[in-house]
Amino acid sequence: MRLAVIGAGSVGRAVAELAVEYGHEVVALADSTGAAVDDDGLDVAAALGRKGETGSVGEADVAAALEADYDALVEATPTTLGDAEPGFGHVARALERDRHVVLANKGPVAERYDDLRALEADSAGTVRFEATVAGAIPAVSTILDQGPARVTAVRGVLNGTANFILTRMAAEGLAYDHVLAEAQDLGVAEADPSFDVDGTDAALKCVIVANLLAGGGFSLADAEVAGIADLPGSALALAAEEGRTVRLVGEATRDGVRVGPRLVPQHGTLAVGGTLNIVQIETVHGGRLSLSGAGAGGPETATAVLADVGRLPARS
Amino acid sequence: MRLAVIGAGSVGRAVAELAVEYGHEVVALADSTGAAVDDDGLDVAAALGRKGETGSVGEADVAAALEADYDALVEATPTTLGDAEPGFGHVARALERDRHVVLANKGPVAERYDDLRALEADSAGTVRFEATVAGAIPAVSTILDQGPARVTAVRGVLNGTANFILTRMAAEGLAYDHVLAEAQDLGVAEADPSFDVDGTDAALKCVIVANLLAGGGFSLADAEVAGIADLPGSALALAAEEGRTVRLVGEATRDGVRVGPRLVPQHGTLAVGGTLNIVQIETVHGGRLSLSGAGAGGPETATAVLADVGRLPARS
Repeated sequence: MRLAVIGAGSVGRAVAELAVEYGHEVVALADSTGAAVDDDGLDVAAALGRKGETGSVGEADVAAALEADYDALVEATPTTLGDAEPGFGHVARALERDRHVVLANKGPVAERYDDLRALEADSAGTVRFEATVAGAIPAVSTILDQGPARVTAVRGVLNGTANFILTRMAAEGLAYDHVLAEAQDLGVAEADPSFDVDGTDAALKCVIVANLLAGGGFSLADAEVAGIADLPGSALALAAEEGRTVRLVGEATRDGVRVGPRLVPQHGTLAVGGTLNIVQIETVHGGRLSLSGAGAGGPETATAVLADVGRLPARS
Repeated sequence: MRLAVIGAGSVGRAVAELAVEYGHEVVALADSTGAAVDDDGLDVAAALGRKGETGSVGEADVAAALEADYDALVEATPTTLGDAEPGFGHVARALERDRHVVLANKGPVAERYDDLRALEADSAGTVRFEATVAGAIPAVSTILDQGPARVTAVRGVLNGTANFILTRMAAEGLAYDHVLAEAQDLGVAEADPSFDVDGTDAALKCVIVANLLAGGGFSLADAEVAGIADLPGSALALAAEEGRTVRLVGEATRDGVRVGPRLVPQHGTLAVGGTLNIVQIETVHGGRLSLSGAGAGGPETATAVLADVGRLPARS
């Protein structure tokens, strides 16, 4: 497939770099300040080199990338809430042009699912979004394979930063602020970790799953969300005395989304360590499926994007 | 899709029963003594009722089922070794007729992978076999999505009967023979449990994975296999003293297959309990993915068959 990759952060960059290995071609790559377009196949390494030197992958603008001759648009710009722009507009343009869309950006799928499906219904293009839920873990495709109507609930640990902090707090008996600072030093937490520790990021993923199960209707505003910033270290110590620990658990059903710190068995399936994620899918006929792995990271998440690309129908 | 289901054991029966819910139609159903064929769509409940009364789903023969007007053949007869017949012949006939094939029967994929791919290459039909490795767990599709060339190794607990026995031996300090008898009473182990406890069943699954990774070349004869029947209860007690336990672990790489009892951390990811299976996939770009769930069972395995059916290309 011929790909236009919009967004050159860790995920967009990895998609562009790995595309050829997966048998695809990049014809456009855009970052927040410019774009590089070549319908004959872009020199990705050169474009990323240019970004290193000048701050931008090229001198074209994003609009030119959106009009390039691609089969599938990969939307990997940062997640935004509310109208989910500018990502939503990029997706809309590709679908108007009857091109496929693969999202790593959670905004359009969580905040404007119904709008997204309406645009897809009027397009010859298909929308996929495996990468928006738990990075490399094949959560969305497993739900689709079982059939959303035959999945009763999905729960999981869906934010690696929060999980790293909880794991360290429990293992070392350290306070939240101390571990957060350590996570920031290690690059596990961002300078502004709000979305990770207040539950927003996990909630967006659960909202996407709820939309998948219910056929739409949910946005972040519908989620019941609590974070981990106020969790005292003593709560973890107390839990440990009873063979339990605390995880930031998200749950999605057809009825809604809840995210918050929950007690789980210390050695249970949900108690994944460090930055790992886990997704548990409760199915009607297939039992409970538990899928764990890297829920973030550029190359890891790029594998989910490229899995989606590999499943797109050929463009007629 | 229009399906012919060959084999009416627990998996074939569940596929036939669930097909309509997944949007498909059954036009033929065969068991070891007869078949029912109706190009207008079979009454599956009636055919299975007939089997309950007379021992056979119908008075037609398997050959008639193989010549029915189906889009995809579901091969769910018992796994056989060596020439993998009669399953291989069923698959060959469907591919000759340019029909798709979905296998739950491990024989043709483990024992005659190269022959199977050669027939597929000459056919307009496609071969899929998610259900042959770890039941409901999406192991094969995850390997395909990452790309077999980008998977370095797969290991896992791939036999629920053996795992049930090991779990009970460790938890109760009981001897192998005692737990096996219990498992037979519970219906977890068959009257002749050889393939489950001697490692053959797990090895067949690993051979299939090795074929997927290497593009063929392996059969059961190439696997290094040890079972659990000679494992003394004292080995489990000793392991527990060091925070470990024993699991029947299978490993597949491009270089071969090994199956045998292995020490694993007692609370580690591989130490799934009871009849659960787990598959760990080591990938180049996506990290390690761990997938656990029901590795056997009629409806559970049928969900893997129907996931494959859902991914088949439309027949032109």
